[in-house]
Amino acid sequence: MNYVLGLDMGGTNSVLGIVDAEGKVVARTSIKTQDYSQIETYIDALYLAAEPIIREVGGIANIRGIGAGVPNGNFYTGCIQQAMNLPWHGVVPFAELMSKRFGLPCRITNDANAAAMGEMRYGVAREMKDFIMITLGTGVGSGIVIDGKLVYGHDGFAGELGHTCADYTDAARPCNCGKKGCLEAYASATGVARTAKEIVSSSAKDTLLRQLPIDHITSKDVFDAAEKGDEVAKQIFDYTGTILGRSLADFVAFSAPEAIILFGGLCKSGHWILDPVVRALNDNVLPLWRGKVKVLFSGLNEADAAVLGAAALVE
Amino acid sequence: MNYVLGLDMGGTNSVLGIVDAEGKVVARTSIKTQDYSQIETYIDALYLAAEPIIREVGGIANIRGIGAGVPNGNFYTGCIQQAMNLPWHGVVPFAELMSKRFGLPCRITNDANAAAMGEMRYGVAREMKDFIMITLGTGVGSGIVIDGKLVYGHDGFAGELGHTCADYTDAARPCNCGKKGCLEAYASATGVARTAKEIVSSSAKDTLLRQLPIDHITSKDVFDAAEKGDEVAKQIFDYTGTILGRSLADFVAFSAPEAIILFGGLCKSGHWILDPVVRALNDNVLPLWRGKVKVLFSGLNEADAAVLGAAALVE
Repeated sequence: MNYVLGLDMGGTNSVLGIVDAEGKVVARTSIKTQDYSQIETYIDALYLAAEPIIREVGGIANIRGIGAGVPNGNFYTGCIQQAMNLPWHGVVPFAELMSKRFGLPCRITNDANAAAMGEMRYGVAREMKDFIMITLGTGVGSGIVIDGKLVYGHDGFAGELGHTCADYTDAARPCNCGKKGCLEAYASATGVARTAKEIVSSSAKDTLLRQLPIDHITSKDVFDAAEKGDEVAKQIFDYTGTILGRSLADFVAFSAPEAIILFGGLCKSGHWILDPVVRALNDNVLPLWRGKVKVLFSGLNEADAAVLGAAALVE
Repeated sequence: MNYVLGLDMGGTNSVLGIVDAEGKVVARTSIKTQDYSQIETYIDALYLAAEPIIREVGGIANIRGIGAGVPNGNFYTGCIQQAMNLPWHGVVPFAELMSKRFGLPCRITNDANAAAMGEMRYGVAREMKDFIMITLGTGVGSGIVIDGKLVYGHDGFAGELGHTCADYTDAARPCNCGKKGCLEAYASATGVARTAKEIVSSSAKDTLLRQLPIDHITSKDVFDAAEKGDEVAKQIFDYTGTILGRSLADFVAFSAPEAIILFGGLCKSGHWILDPVVRALNDNVLPLWRGKVKVLFSGLNEADAAVLGAAALVE
């Protein structure tokens, strides 16, 4: 009973890892999430893929349970509810179905919460009781830890900080959720791409980014340009970081965390994104917190963080 | 040991009550906070005022401890730190000084947290584990309860929701804290007075409010006018409620509370303020919470809530 299965379900890939008592991913496998239009066939495929790695650790009798980080996964109900990026719509009783198929107890939470959990167990938040994890990927997610515990809220859906408002004006960007001005519309990979498009097309300045097809500029492209001293690229990070930092100031006013931990693709931009974030946070936070809240990049590699965090759901 | 002393310290009055095991304020006294330029003479005056009511319940041997709700009171350190509206500046070791003078253990928290605590023990939040209390007075304060516990954060200062940003534009109102656009600058009594001044002076519409000196219109005046069908008064509440409601939508995204509880002077405006708040909350919240988060007025009378809540700090 020394191992736990940790599942990191993304809109594209689902990674299943076996985690040992020391928090190491000792074996892993993956399937394509989008290949299965039925949840039952998805779980069958996962089971098939898992069999060889389970044999590697001596069979299912050595596994205590399954923890899964899934988009819109609800810790309380064990269901996936209204996930926009998954093939299965409505309410899917995922924990129950997994538990039946594998013959193991299964707990789920959303992907950002799983990452926060991983960070708390194995990453830079190991000594922390109060921190906020912000995931900067295709969307913007969050996992909030207060007094050493993940915040689930009344219904299990707490921590949707990507959908707090970063712009209350009529000019605010529309968000995928149907609202306007959400932080996600600015600080996600998609948001950065949109900012790049707006700034490049409205600016007369010379920029390396103009050599790229304007609809396909990525945050990686912007990073590469900034590294070469491109002023427009720096302006894109300044814009993004300023919006993110002032939102973080509001999050600090809520739970007074010791640190805010940034996670996901945009972190690869390093100081180009971190510097404006820290500046805007300190410009916008109440004086009592000025200069006192750490902003850190995650200490875990992206592939393992969610698997480890999900595995940590199993007692 | 059946009684507890509960202190509600305000910028103007300090109310000290004796609370029995059933949560009733069985005796109370008060002193003027501003009459004492030294914290020691303030505490001496409090002790003198307390003596007769302590005798009423059989003497100090029947009292277990003191709980105090004080502006900028820190639960962890027992200190009042940088309170703008009190005569004593800097860091005041209030719990320690009280404890020495009364010979009783003393715990403190800030006034909004004390109100939230009172609401949880004796008010409309009795059955709730996740709610947010918003105090709408001279300023805007908040007490956040998650999983049945008050959120203090890393440093004890969590829950400053009055200083989250409600307007990120350059036209945002300055706030007393030195920042711009804080919710407090719009949804406090002072904020409503300022909105009244702005709307009355910029509108050509006939309004009862024009009969009052423009610098002294209060939320009570606006309420009285709205009750008489005054359209400008209704517009003032709409403006205030819309800003408050959309901020509440962001707070919901943080902790997914069962309810938001409004407390303090502005609540006397009843449906005039509640209706636009509820509308703006539901217009701006993620679809999954639409129509699901209760917005309630506090069930406690203002004078008792903080005394009871403070008393609840004593185990």
